[in-house]
Amino acid sequence: MTGVLPPGSVIGILGSGQLGRMLAVSAAELGFRVHVFGDTSGPAFDVAASTTVGPYEDLGAITAFAETVDVVTYEFENVPLGAAAAAAAVRPVRPGARALEVAQDRLVEKRFLSDIGLPVAPFANVDNLNDLEDALATLGTPAILKTCRFGYDGKGQVRITSAEESDWALDAIGRAPAVLEGVVPFDCEISVLCVRGIDGRTAVYDVPLNSHKHGILDTSTVPAPVPAEVCEKARAMAARVAEALDYVGLLAVEMFYLGKDKPEPLIINEIAPRVHNSGHWTLDACGVSQFENHIRAVAGWPLGSVARHSDAVMTNLIGADVEQWAELAAEPQACLHIYGKNEARPGRKMGHVTRLSTLSGK
Amino acid sequence: MTGVLPPGSVIGILGSGQLGRMLAVSAAELGFRVHVFGDTSGPAFDVAASTTVGPYEDLGAITAFAETVDVVTYEFENVPLGAAAAAAAVRPVRPGARALEVAQDRLVEKRFLSDIGLPVAPFANVDNLNDLEDALATLGTPAILKTCRFGYDGKGQVRITSAEESDWALDAIGRAPAVLEGVVPFDCEISVLCVRGIDGRTAVYDVPLNSHKHGILDTSTVPAPVPAEVCEKARAMAARVAEALDYVGLLAVEMFYLGKDKPEPLIINEIAPRVHNSGHWTLDACGVSQFENHIRAVAGWPLGSVARHSDAVMTNLIGADVEQWAELAAEPQACLHIYGKNEARPGRKMGHVTRLSTLSGK
Repeated sequence: MTGVLPPGSVIGILGSGQLGRMLAVSAAELGFRVHVFGDTSGPAFDVAASTTVGPYEDLGAITAFAETVDVVTYEFENVPLGAAAAAAAVRPVRPGARALEVAQDRLVEKRFLSDIGLPVAPFANVDNLNDLEDALATLGTPAILKTCRFGYDGKGQVRITSAEESDWALDAIGRAPAVLEGVVPFDCEISVLCVRGIDGRTAVYDVPLNSHKHGILDTSTVPAPVPAEVCEKARAMAARVAEALDYVGLLAVEMFYLGKDKPEPLIINEIAPRVHNSGHWTLDACGVSQFENHIRAVAGWPLGSVARHSDAVMTNLIGADVEQWAELAAEPQACLHIYGKNEARPGRKMGHVTRLSTLSGK
Repeated sequence: MTGVLPPGSVIGILGSGQLGRMLAVSAAELGFRVHVFGDTSGPAFDVAASTTVGPYEDLGAITAFAETVDVVTYEFENVPLGAAAAAAAVRPVRPGARALEVAQDRLVEKRFLSDIGLPVAPFANVDNLNDLEDALATLGTPAILKTCRFGYDGKGQVRITSAEESDWALDAIGRAPAVLEGVVPFDCEISVLCVRGIDGRTAVYDVPLNSHKHGILDTSTVPAPVPAEVCEKARAMAARVAEALDYVGLLAVEMFYLGKDKPEPLIINEIAPRVHNSGHWTLDACGVSQFENHIRAVAGWPLGSVARHSDAVMTNLIGADVEQWAELAAEPQACLHIYGKNEARPGRKMGHVTRLSTLSGK
């Protein structure tokens, strides 16, 4: 089959963080060699066969990197489009540049989702104070002002409770191009982890419920306590996104579940064109993890089973949480993962632990 | 606790093969950095943070390596005792030199096991033709002549069916110091994977049944179709070996099950002071694999649960078997592992596949 990379091929990964690390390990388990390119040395470097440090803006370095590999993928959605294009000029880049364009800009993303008929919260483009006042008049308060670009883990966004806060809110987000989103009351947040192969087939993991602390993912619990038909709908919506992007790899789609009596029970919050923190439980609860399935997809392999053998609760270890490693290691139900970062700064993702229903003390 | 290595510590591994590779990945998953020392570059190098190539006999190189790590372990039982001693002069070596001494010599091993009251096949030391003729007179035929040292995967041994074959048999094993073993009829081979921590606690995985092809492990099936009380006895025997060696890490004990009507239902065939091919199914069927538990033990951590969430059949991919990777990758029950070796020579272990009872097509 065209585009299929045999074991021994080299997977290039842009990004040296923990997601790159877990991708690199999964690639190695399938017999691939891994070359990681990062703007700094990071956790992925310790498990990669080759590494390069350089700025993503150095297109010569990106081209040289791409020439050493058989396919290029990435662990973060803010890969500069220029870097993706430079890599794509010499090797396949999967997922493609279109997924990056859409995911890098909230406005482009929301328009894309609306255009393919998928529900999102009401939104308006905000470039200045006039735009914001108009948008608040239409959408009402409370509402959330979010920068179009570079927001993550609750950064780059501010909640507005009255129109008088407009000027302050624009300052708070650095007067960057933004989107105002209406606040839609919801029961819970779920996410959908969908993988799509180069043959266009998709597979979708069971849906986790996500809870946050200080704007950062705290736990993902699978199965989510959400009606089965809602989960099915969520899975179909994610697959629709993947198809519309002609996506190859693992796509994460965050959604809000509004409640069972709502005519439209789900809206899409945002998409991430990469493996996702809310899918880390697949490492321990499934035969084939999100990381392995991403690697399979970008290597042109058949997708692996997304079947789950256990119920699971994944909990992030943020900052000093990782100091509990000894207690966690002694818990019989816990599968512990530590990312090998040097310094446990506040808010930094240092590891995670997944507790499985099927493991008892023994 | 004394001797406990926190995440970020460096695990040194002697040996660059697939066992070292899987150990290195498990160490990384717990947040350790890994330095692999091998006499050649090998599969473990691709997933290690640091690597050194050198002969194991170069004690200066071994000392320099040991000084860069916090603990030294190994992936093969034929680590020269001089290398183990050089490393132990500067860092803890786990498991210790005693386990190597015992496992490197069949005669020492059989005497050790007999001395601690564990059953082995009848045996006699054979250094020359006279010894062999005497031994055959005592043990009868058929019998198996095995070199004391460097036998593995059926190499270094020959079956003797009559006393006239003595001279030929000694030639066949290169007239090396040897042991003659009486042939004991058995129902099947099982193995026991026992891990022991620095605090002396042990944990033992469920017992697999092993089948061989051309003298090389072909499949390991868990649970083994052997009565529960026999498995319990096997587990207790393995723990006894670990205790007698004051062992730290994962110990594999191969046994023959002689059948349920025998007064002594089990005899020990051999021990391996390392992670073992017959435990590869623990990667996919357990919360904590043999590799992770070995790393936990040598790092002084609490042992992880050895509980199993799935029944499993592990099949080795030997030589050209690995060319089936595309079909295997498409099987919904299969968890595929490929070791990243360059060349699929006959008899070479290229990967393995574990089929889980809990995964269905989805």
